[in-house]
Amino acid sequence: MDLSKMVVEIASEMAAETDRGHVADYIPALARVSPDQFGIAVVTADGTVHAAGDAETPFSIQSVSKVFALTLALDRIGEALWHRVGREPSGSAFNSIVQLESERGIPRNPFINAGAIVVSDALLAGHDARETIGDLLRFVRFLAEDDGVEIDSEVAHSEAGTGFRNFALANYMKAFGNLGNAVEDACKVYFHQCALTMSCCQLAKAGRYLMTEGIHPGSGTPVITPERARRISALMLTCGHYDGSGEFAFRVGIPGKSGVGGGILAIVPGKASIAVWSPGLNERGNSKLGSLALERLAERTGWSVFTA
Amino acid sequence: MDLSKMVVEIASEMAAETDRGHVADYIPALARVSPDQFGIAVVTADGTVHAAGDAETPFSIQSVSKVFALTLALDRIGEALWHRVGREPSGSAFNSIVQLESERGIPRNPFINAGAIVVSDALLAGHDARETIGDLLRFVRFLAEDDGVEIDSEVAHSEAGTGFRNFALANYMKAFGNLGNAVEDACKVYFHQCALTMSCCQLAKAGRYLMTEGIHPGSGTPVITPERARRISALMLTCGHYDGSGEFAFRVGIPGKSGVGGGILAIVPGKASIAVWSPGLNERGNSKLGSLALERLAERTGWSVFTA
Amino acid sequence: MDLSKMVVEIASEMAAETDRGHVADYIPALARVSPDQFGIAVVTADGTVHAAGDAETPFSIQSVSKVFALTLALDRIGEALWHRVGREPSGSAFNSIVQLESERGIPRNPFINAGAIVVSDALLAGHDARETIGDLLRFVRFLAEDDGVEIDSEVAHSEAGTGFRNFALANYMKAFGNLGNAVEDACKVYFHQCALTMSCCQLAKAGRYLMTEGIHPGSGTPVITPERARRISALMLTCGHYDGSGEFAFRVGIPGKSGVGGGILAIVPGKASIAVWSPGLNERGNSKLGSLALERLAERTGWSVFTA
Amino acid sequence: MDLSKMVVEIASEMAAETDRGHVADYIPALARVSPDQFGIAVVTADGTVHAAGDAETPFSIQSVSKVFALTLALDRIGEALWHRVGREPSGSAFNSIVQLESERGIPRNPFINAGAIVVSDALLAGHDARETIGDLLRFVRFLAEDDGVEIDSEVAHSEAGTGFRNFALANYMKAFGNLGNAVEDACKVYFHQCALTMSCCQLAKAGRYLMTEGIHPGSGTPVITPERARRISALMLTCGHYDGSGEFAFRVGIPGKSGVGGGILAIVPGKASIAVWSPGLNERGNSKLGSLALERLAERTGWSVFTA
Repeated sequence: MDLSKMVVEIASEMAAETDRGHVADYIPALARVSPDQFGIAVVTADGTVHAAGDAETPFSIQSVSKVFALTLALDRIGEALWHRVGREPSGSAFNSIVQLESERGIPRNPFINAGAIVVSDALLAGHDARETIGDLLRFVRFLAEDDGVEIDSEVAHSEAGTGFRNFALANYMKAFGNLGNAVEDACKVYFHQCALTMSCCQLAKAGRYLMTEGIHPGSGTPVITPERARRISALMLTCGHYDGSGEFAFRVGIPGKSGVGGGILAIVPGKASIAVWSPGLNERGNSKLGSLALERLAERTGWSVFTA
Repeated sequence: MDLSKMVVEIASEMAAETDRGHVADYIPALARVSPDQFGIAVVTADGTVHAAGDAETPFSIQSVSKVFALTLALDRIGEALWHRVGREPSGSAFNSIVQLESERGIPRNPFINAGAIVVSDALLAGHDARETIGDLLRFVRFLAEDDGVEIDSEVAHSEAGTGFRNFALANYMKAFGNLGNAVEDACKVYFHQCALTMSCCQLAKAGRYLMTEGIHPGSGTPVITPERARRISALMLTCGHYDGSGEFAFRVGIPGKSGVGGGILAIVPGKASIAVWSPGLNERGNSKLGSLALERLAERTGWSVFTA
Repeated sequence: MDLSKMVVEIASEMAAETDRGHVADYIPALARVSPDQFGIAVVTADGTVHAAGDAETPFSIQSVSKVFALTLALDRIGEALWHRVGREPSGSAFNSIVQLESERGIPRNPFINAGAIVVSDALLAGHDARETIGDLLRFVRFLAEDDGVEIDSEVAHSEAGTGFRNFALANYMKAFGNLGNAVEDACKVYFHQCALTMSCCQLAKAGRYLMTEGIHPGSGTPVITPERARRISALMLTCGHYDGSGEFAFRVGIPGKSGVGGGILAIVPGKASIAVWSPGLNERGNSKLGSLALERLAERTGWSVFTA
Repeated sequence: MDLSKMVVEIASEMAAETDRGHVADYIPALARVSPDQFGIAVVTADGTVHAAGDAETPFSIQSVSKVFALTLALDRIGEALWHRVGREPSGSAFNSIVQLESERGIPRNPFINAGAIVVSDALLAGHDARETIGDLLRFVRFLAEDDGVEIDSEVAHSEAGTGFRNFALANYMKAFGNLGNAVEDACKVYFHQCALTMSCCQLAKAGRYLMTEGIHPGSGTPVITPERARRISALMLTCGHYDGSGEFAFRVGIPGKSGVGGGILAIVPGKASIAVWSPGLNERGNSKLGSLALERLAERTGWSVFTA
């Protein structure tokens, strides 16, 4: 299996695709990204990086950041987090508020917006928003072993300016007592987290601890227990693509987390940490070419959690 | 790893549990089953069977049968099935009708009741109900290599007598044009399929083809393609425990399908086909001790699709 | 106020309308009715009939019949009916099943399909379906003082053949224990009731008891108590036009009950019983020209329950 | 009919009731009001006031204020308001957010919280919040011909401090573009409007224009057109008691608008403007004794919009 050749071929196939989906346009900084771009980076267990296309171009990782925020929040407040957010697929769109009404302010899982806002609120515990954002940035830089990871403050401010649905979710959960801090602070952390800017290479490196049962390959120290690493992967598989999660599990067969910036982080336990990026989204809000590229990569490598 | 010892220990731990859940009571034949029972059978890749507890006692497999019906329907009508049923977790209870209204008669996945009725309808194509039920029984006997597998006609008739919600689902989908046969015929097949009676040993043997990428270990012939085997496993992981699917994936980490009779079939790709049974259910309608036993088995063996 | 002139003018205005809505097409007998027709009949307190247009043409009164069935059911089983059906607007479409799930099989009101099926079931108490249908027909003939009122058996059988959503509703309520008789019997009564065929003149005469506090003008005997007459009118105002009820109350300001055959019965307490008919429906399933004609009539006569 | 005697009797009956419902407790200023209180005031067409019980005690009128805000907003921006808010009963609780998701930010009617926030936003047009609040206060004082009507700033600030669900509704509608002003401003107007403090006598006087087809009895000038007066009454009947509106129309039969402070304003067109108040609420959030008192008054006077 020549992975380097494979990723180059896939990047070249993706370059030829004409139906590239629609770029998220709710904030200017995302809307002006060209849909022509595609990047892929695969880091294998031995640390080799196989990359092709626009794999070094930084993009807004948006909801992919929910994986890192969840990891840090579990470290910070432990299993108590699960009293405030569930572990079930929602069956609804990423920004749906309907489920919160019948389930009294407890979001279905940490990867829909409402759940991620609860995670942001949990991260705040005892810290102020600025400090918390700094902690998260340092954590992601540590994971990626790369101080070039940034938070795009234009994106963060745009999110804050147009994020009325997110403010609605936060206020709604606050009404049910499921937000310990001020709505503004939880949202501030959330908006900055979503504004993390990384390249495919950085993102694939940051995701390695999920491939290695929680160990940070650079330092050999545990980021998280093996059990939590497996459980985060389970959540990625069942909930990582909003109401397209089942379809992704069915077609691609590996845990993944997508973002509206067009990025997807995918994990093959013991084998690979993969990042793909292409800004055009499908009708579920997941990267159209990113999903297709991962489907082809899984097919050609035989990577699947459902195979021996 | 001494699997035989493990299953004996787990059976013994389960025997000591006092909080055993509630036995399904909507039909007499299920209601009178004693909650004191627990069985476990593990068939490994080499064909060895490790069993303990009431592993030879036949029970009503109920919704576990949806795995076999789906396999046969895919063989019969192919990928066209997916135009009529989705592949997403529903986010709702197993018998919910709400989602069908907004999604115009297309059930979310083949493992909720509505989806399984569509699968039954697909199985009927060109056959009558009696013949179809016979085909399905023969198929499961072939999978288990055991002609002792039966359909309990008392259970089948009780389901028909009290299955008003299922008749409602079937009529509702018929209204949207998503049922080709008469409501009575589709429901008849569905009720008989749910009345399949198997022991843990039989069920674990029947599930082997999902462990072996679709190959029937007895005959060495393919039951289904490797891709379909993986995809059925993916559906089991994301949708196999109704609105407790995420929780099962999170805690146990292997694909499984449960039934209200208290059985669960679970698959460790390449390694094991496992059946557990204990009649008491948890609040999501999944076997309480069955889930716990699988969690312990996964923990002790290290089996998880989210580990290398 | 020259009512006769008014109704002639309104009929003439309606004849000139080009945007006439869409004729219900779910059964052939309704689909082939020409949308060009319009009829109006107003019976005043003194018994005078003012009619114009196709006021003598029989049409399928469909859901307008729910008013008469409710009246008869209240007579038959009294206030106990209200344990099985609510009195609130549903906020949903006429055939929605969603609300039944969260409210455990109790329909919101007797004028949505689910509620009317419960009323049919209540009418059956101690009788068989054929007998019950006969009773209802005799009751409506008595109200209209006209033995020419018929049940169109082609329509009744077509409803039975395509009424899968109604069978779904009935089975669903049966599952919750809110149907005392067999689903087939309750639906049979319901389908025949909907197949009542009346002209505007007959319908306006049949509705007089609601204008006269429950007294049958022909015989001077009470059909129902004054309190019940007022309460049925209240239900017509809040629930008589499905999810267009608020709009009708807002625009027209008098109690009315519509049917998908294009008929509407409207009551001005103490003053008039009005029937209009035009087969084309608006987007809420209510007669487009019928609603408009009633709005104009109310405007020109000053009739409104919200005025002195 | 001796109205003065009737209201005294009813007040005395209400004093004897032991099951008085539960006082709203979401803000301290409401929670500390004693449930023992009951007031009633009836202003008839000739201007006579019949009052009994605690009819002079000021209370927080809360959602009853939605009637006055709607009246003023219609005056200010006219029928354009109806592009932003519907006229249908919601079928849901007063603070439900579910309907807004499927109907893209357009609230069902102006009497649920979401709708009232849109009305507040409409009132703001071209003014600042403080000015708008002043205008509304002056308008209600003019209607009641009483400068003693006040806004309780403690209540207004408490609402702002705990009104997370209302902030959620406002942000949610803002996300759909259905709020022209800042969320904070629309909510500020809304919270102050809800904090209007009036006695039954003041409230019944303020409501007179709805009894008199829009004319202000004090000055003889029109507050609103007769058509709008009727239409506001229609909205009160179909939507004035949240998801208890149908029940109120069924039992009492006159248009009414309730508030969680325990007040209800009810209108008998041409005959009476009625205010009742008792702080204990029923399970729908409407005054328990207030509803009962109105039911008795309607019964004894024969007042009903459904009678001649």
